[in-house]
Amino acid sequence: MADKIPYKIYLSESEMPTSWYNVRADMKIKPAPLMNPNTGKPATYEDLQPVFCDELIKQELDDTTAYFPIPEDIRNFYKMYRPSPLVRAYCLEEKLQTPAKIYYKFEGNNTSGSHKLNSAIAQAYYAKNQGLKGVTTETGAGQWGTATSMACSYLGLDCHVYMVKVSYEQKPFRREVMRTYGAEVTPSPSETTEVGRKILQEHPGTGGSLGCAISEAVETATNTEGYRYVLGSVLNQVLLHQSVIGLEAKTALDKYNVKPDIIIGCAGGGSNLGGLISPFMGEMLRGEKEYKFIAVEPASCPSLTRGKYAYDYCDTGRVCPMAKMYTLGSGFIPSSSHSGGLRYHGMNSVVSELYDQGLMEARSVEQTEVFKAATEFARVEGILPAPESSHAIKVAIDEALKCKETGEEKVILFGLTGTGYFDLKAYENYNNGTMTDYIPTDEELERGFKSLPNI
Amino acid sequence: MADKIPYKIYLSESEMPTSWYNVRADMKIKPAPLMNPNTGKPATYEDLQPVFCDELIKQELDDTTAYFPIPEDIRNFYKMYRPSPLVRAYCLEEKLQTPAKIYYKFEGNNTSGSHKLNSAIAQAYYAKNQGLKGVTTETGAGQWGTATSMACSYLGLDCHVYMVKVSYEQKPFRREVMRTYGAEVTPSPSETTEVGRKILQEHPGTGGSLGCAISEAVETATNTEGYRYVLGSVLNQVLLHQSVIGLEAKTALDKYNVKPDIIIGCAGGGSNLGGLISPFMGEMLRGEKEYKFIAVEPASCPSLTRGKYAYDYCDTGRVCPMAKMYTLGSGFIPSSSHSGGLRYHGMNSVVSELYDQGLMEARSVEQTEVFKAATEFARVEGILPAPESSHAIKVAIDEALKCKETGEEKVILFGLTGTGYFDLKAYENYNNGTMTDYIPTDEELERGFKSLPNI
Repeated sequence: MADKIPYKIYLSESEMPTSWYNVRADMKIKPAPLMNPNTGKPATYEDLQPVFCDELIKQELDDTTAYFPIPEDIRNFYKMYRPSPLVRAYCLEEKLQTPAKIYYKFEGNNTSGSHKLNSAIAQAYYAKNQGLKGVTTETGAGQWGTATSMACSYLGLDCHVYMVKVSYEQKPFRREVMRTYGAEVTPSPSETTEVGRKILQEHPGTGGSLGCAISEAVETATNTEGYRYVLGSVLNQVLLHQSVIGLEAKTALDKYNVKPDIIIGCAGGGSNLGGLISPFMGEMLRGEKEYKFIAVEPASCPSLTRGKYAYDYCDTGRVCPMAKMYTLGSGFIPSSSHSGGLRYHGMNSVVSELYDQGLMEARSVEQTEVFKAATEFARVEGILPAPESSHAIKVAIDEALKCKETGEEKVILFGLTGTGYFDLKAYENYNNGTMTDYIPTDEELERGFKSLPNI
Repeated sequence: MADKIPYKIYLSESEMPTSWYNVRADMKIKPAPLMNPNTGKPATYEDLQPVFCDELIKQELDDTTAYFPIPEDIRNFYKMYRPSPLVRAYCLEEKLQTPAKIYYKFEGNNTSGSHKLNSAIAQAYYAKNQGLKGVTTETGAGQWGTATSMACSYLGLDCHVYMVKVSYEQKPFRREVMRTYGAEVTPSPSETTEVGRKILQEHPGTGGSLGCAISEAVETATNTEGYRYVLGSVLNQVLLHQSVIGLEAKTALDKYNVKPDIIIGCAGGGSNLGGLISPFMGEMLRGEKEYKFIAVEPASCPSLTRGKYAYDYCDTGRVCPMAKMYTLGSGFIPSSSHSGGLRYHGMNSVVSELYDQGLMEARSVEQTEVFKAATEFARVEGILPAPESSHAIKVAIDEALKCKETGEEKVILFGLTGTGYFDLKAYENYNNGTMTDYIPTDEELERGFKSLPNI
């Protein structure tokens, strides 16, 4: 069977993407711009310069250029861990006894354990290129912090990571990986920033949050000579860099004349989902092809399925520009029973706008069923998936089982964003039967919405 | 530059090995056979039947058949995580400013985190094929236990892992991966076996050892209907299965007309080293090519460099057949300051015999310099290596730096057996400057040698 599709499709180096694809260029109705909270007007290049690297601001604000060439140094770094394999899930199909053909793009084969490295190296590169000394950032589950540490270490940049305190304490191994890559890691909130001290005064003993760590990292970046801030999701520039996932996946599928019917990604800040779907969405926006896109989010943090589409603060300390997005309000904090990432209160503006235009579906799933799917997947496909990625697995399995009922041979593509090697406490809870689900009540969501700005 | 060697060489599925290579077939002086301690004679097929699967005994005892076809089911499983990449370490070369060309075969891209899965799936397959219900095994650092759990879960076999108690307590995450794959995990020594109860009585509160866990696993296998025992290293059958590493590496290098001058592997029980070097050693044994082989072991557990070449017990409880090997005596226990694996008292018989014939060098290195090399490697090559694998990195860097002095453009190939994601306690010690080295004194080694049998 010469034409049989292999278990794993790897592109050759010459087939790897040479440009990132900016899906905004093909959107007729563009996503709303970032807003300067002080002026109430769209954020300008100059507004953003104290916080972000120059070249990245250009990428952030540009909604008309379709392709941004990937600089050669970044392409060389990509060659260290990319192309990532596009895997045909033969074993999962067999286990489910489904006529569906399932593919997943696996981004976990690097030390950050996820897709985060795709944007970390890009952001670090532009910082280095601008002659900066270092960058600051925040990390929750730890993948983004690890990715940034790796990229900075490679380029010889300083890296200062504010790590959500509860993660810092519960995940000492994540911290050690970052330290091994030379990063300075500070538990957040900390006494090292004004915003940190304020939060500690108002909430003594708090375990911190992503929004709070972002505020601290931004404050440090703007107060330190030669530093800028980098962010692992939510921003359009991150979505742009993550398009490498979708571009590789599409090239690999095109090689075998396979067209996916359904494309599924988990959604926290939206960057992996956005990156995976971008080139396919582009075809749909240009009227060339039809796809069904599904964003999957946790029932405990349901920004798309239960949030409001409005301008909101990106961080707790309100030091960043505002973004129009599906959001639960920057005051929303997911239940402490929630495992892993996908806990950000908002959603990238591009993903939000595409969803608002009805070009994409969204589903929320509860974590015990996510871990059930994760375990089933691990046992037949070998890979122990990250809790975040397992949200996509859950819905991919659901869709494959629908095909089993109807007999349809649909092609399903999903993003397997990372591995769960640092999430075994959550797996232990699941294995012991002590994992619980939590769906916020309408009243709890209302409390979050009260933190939305009055504009 | 069409001919430039890519960062990573992946074989296509059709280029993957279809047979394992048995280097014993090309050895003029064969390794000494396993010995039945009760008869004082070479162990027979019948002697081994209560412990091992039938087909695996045939592989164990056969020192004349050069190639064993890999069954199709195993080849399909291999396709889930193989071929493993052969990586050209461009970034490390650049960092070292060496004219040497460095390649490594990276076996860490699977959930067991190491090469162990190559033999685990083979052993589980033959158990399943024989109609068995399950297997028992032991694990120290946890990679082998994880690999066996994954293989058994895939094939629907029961899996009972005796995990060295000190690891069980220090590495709860390793335990949870195994449980996620459905394995039963018992800290060893335990009250569940006669040998375990005996050891607990003699050494109350002991943290256990690999030799002790082996004894418990063998006892349980022989006392349970439909069970056999599987072992992750030391045995010739494991070396045979691990030849897939060397075969893939050789095919990848041959494609680009690259011939390594120096081939380096870390050595604990010897299976990854033996598997990596086998096809190259075969060429040398047949007089076709010359290579320099280097086995690297920890200074704290120096079986090749300071051990005796003699028949010895393979396990503490002395329930297994004896093997002729370089050994420190089954009573030798490495210092508690030793991090990671490579702590077995002996060495596979094939590797031992090749070393004894002068066909291979051996070096011992101390762990702080190993972690220094590991950190340097991680920062430029991206991969956070396992402590075990980092022994090979250390010597590869040493050899590359020698080339820098002499100007020689030698080609260095080393085995990067796995990742260090579960070894971050050791990295933390290194990062904090609290890691220490330990070289056993001659007196300590003498005490170990006293446990050797009188034959």
